[in-house]
Amino acid sequence: MGDGPNLGPGKVAEALEFRPGAVLDEIDPHGTALAPGDHGHTEAATAGLEAELAELQVRLYAEAVGGGHRSLLLLLQGMDTSGKDGTVRRVVGAMNPAGVTVTPFRKPTAEELQHDFLWRIDRALPRPGNVAVFNRSQYEDVLVVRVHQLVAESEWRTRYDRINEFERRVVDSGCHIVKVFLHISKDEQKRRLGDRLEDPAKYWKYNVGDLAERELWADYQAAYQDALTLCSTAAAPWYVVPADHKWYRDWLVANLLVDALRDLNPTYPPPGFDVAEQRRLVAALD
Amino acid sequence: MGDGPNLGPGKVAEALEFRPGAVLDEIDPHGTALAPGDHGHTEAATAGLEAELAELQVRLYAEAVGGGHRSLLLLLQGMDTSGKDGTVRRVVGAMNPAGVTVTPFRKPTAEELQHDFLWRIDRALPRPGNVAVFNRSQYEDVLVVRVHQLVAESEWRTRYDRINEFERRVVDSGCHIVKVFLHISKDEQKRRLGDRLEDPAKYWKYNVGDLAERELWADYQAAYQDALTLCSTAAAPWYVVPADHKWYRDWLVANLLVDALRDLNPTYPPPGFDVAEQRRLVAALD
Repeated sequence: MGDGPNLGPGKVAEALEFRPGAVLDEIDPHGTALAPGDHGHTEAATAGLEAELAELQVRLYAEAVGGGHRSLLLLLQGMDTSGKDGTVRRVVGAMNPAGVTVTPFRKPTAEELQHDFLWRIDRALPRPGNVAVFNRSQYEDVLVVRVHQLVAESEWRTRYDRINEFERRVVDSGCHIVKVFLHISKDEQKRRLGDRLEDPAKYWKYNVGDLAERELWADYQAAYQDALTLCSTAAAPWYVVPADHKWYRDWLVANLLVDALRDLNPTYPPPGFDVAEQRRLVAALD
Repeated sequence: MGDGPNLGPGKVAEALEFRPGAVLDEIDPHGTALAPGDHGHTEAATAGLEAELAELQVRLYAEAVGGGHRSLLLLLQGMDTSGKDGTVRRVVGAMNPAGVTVTPFRKPTAEELQHDFLWRIDRALPRPGNVAVFNRSQYEDVLVVRVHQLVAESEWRTRYDRINEFERRVVDSGCHIVKVFLHISKDEQKRRLGDRLEDPAKYWKYNVGDLAERELWADYQAAYQDALTLCSTAAAPWYVVPADHKWYRDWLVANLLVDALRDLNPTYPPPGFDVAEQRRLVAALD
């Protein structure tokens, strides 16, 4: 547990940003150094952040009703069992579902494979005022695709630049991007796989194939190291979230979203009508 | 406030169903007859229902992961300010956003107008295991379209049957439909319009055009009476929710959803693997 440095706005983002020279393997997945207190205290802090998140989301949505074009994208990556689904349920669940779309990117369909790898990503971007959440993303095309050699190296090597160009264009269009790598330890993955086998209500979350993927742990970590290094840009930096502790993970992701929205500082649009006149008209209604 | 008949499963749906011979104008939008208690007590009951809703939703989702094809559609209709958005935020917001899509049906786009009126509806239906929410729906094509004579009467008259056929097909495909009419009084609408003009953070919700629509109140009520009468079918009945009191409305809608899911009784899929063997494999992981 952290000793509770009470971090100001933007400090969590600053601390978690994956910068040039950073080494994924040197970041402790089990750490909780930034936590505002123990488990219970941190969960209470998360609830407070979630309330602020919901309020900021309304402002983003309202701004777009008034003609604004800004939006938010939360992109989640991580090894199997790293908590992508849990983060969606807990943190994203704090927002109004009317302004949220969650898109899981699974093995591409036949139709998706007929297009460039960014085609399906583009179609899932948020509309103005909305929040889009990607459960996995374009990065699968330099992760699982690379590890399993699903395309030639000469192809996937080009994708880092193409992703950066794509994200630059998305950001320029008004969509703020928060890219989160949920960083878990191999020990914690083992524990979570075991948990899924202890409760019949969790069997459906267990995939036999996860064990074979785990054999490729080092290859995946190397692929993540490259993706984080090559695609943590000024326009769309990567954040590494230590995710062995779910309560800490939720607090960090809530912080990242609140920080991003505070920076955007969306504003309620001015009325497009004469308020005093409309008040008179409403007061006179039968 | 109601005297708190503690209704058993399915009783709310039974009480709210719009049956042959029912007259919308005779249903009190201000009533709270079924409430389990006062405002505070009812909100606590709603929170309990929401927890159950979230749990049932997970089971529906899990069932589909195991190959199930069932899904849920909540369709919301109502006059301006009747609380469609609030119902989404509060009741739908209790579910995991990963399994929920919310689609607002606004004035059709140029592309949508090039297709049959049910084309855009079809595209927004839930995938297996998911919950779709329609904020307005196919019924706009026999409501605003009828009231404003946007198509010939000979056209919209055919739509009730076409909607019934469409819904029958949707239900047969495994999608359970809950159609809710949020019934508010003209007085309550006036109050809510006024509220939106008292708070700059609510100006964006105010539409000058709502006042002109209100002039057509009786025409809309007549159009709703026909839609409810002609399209409350065994496959997809209409429920009329008295909606002047938001806390009562939320409790009723939460009840309708929980009742629907209890009836579906989705089940966690059996494991598609040998649990004991997988436990051994996981225990042996490094």
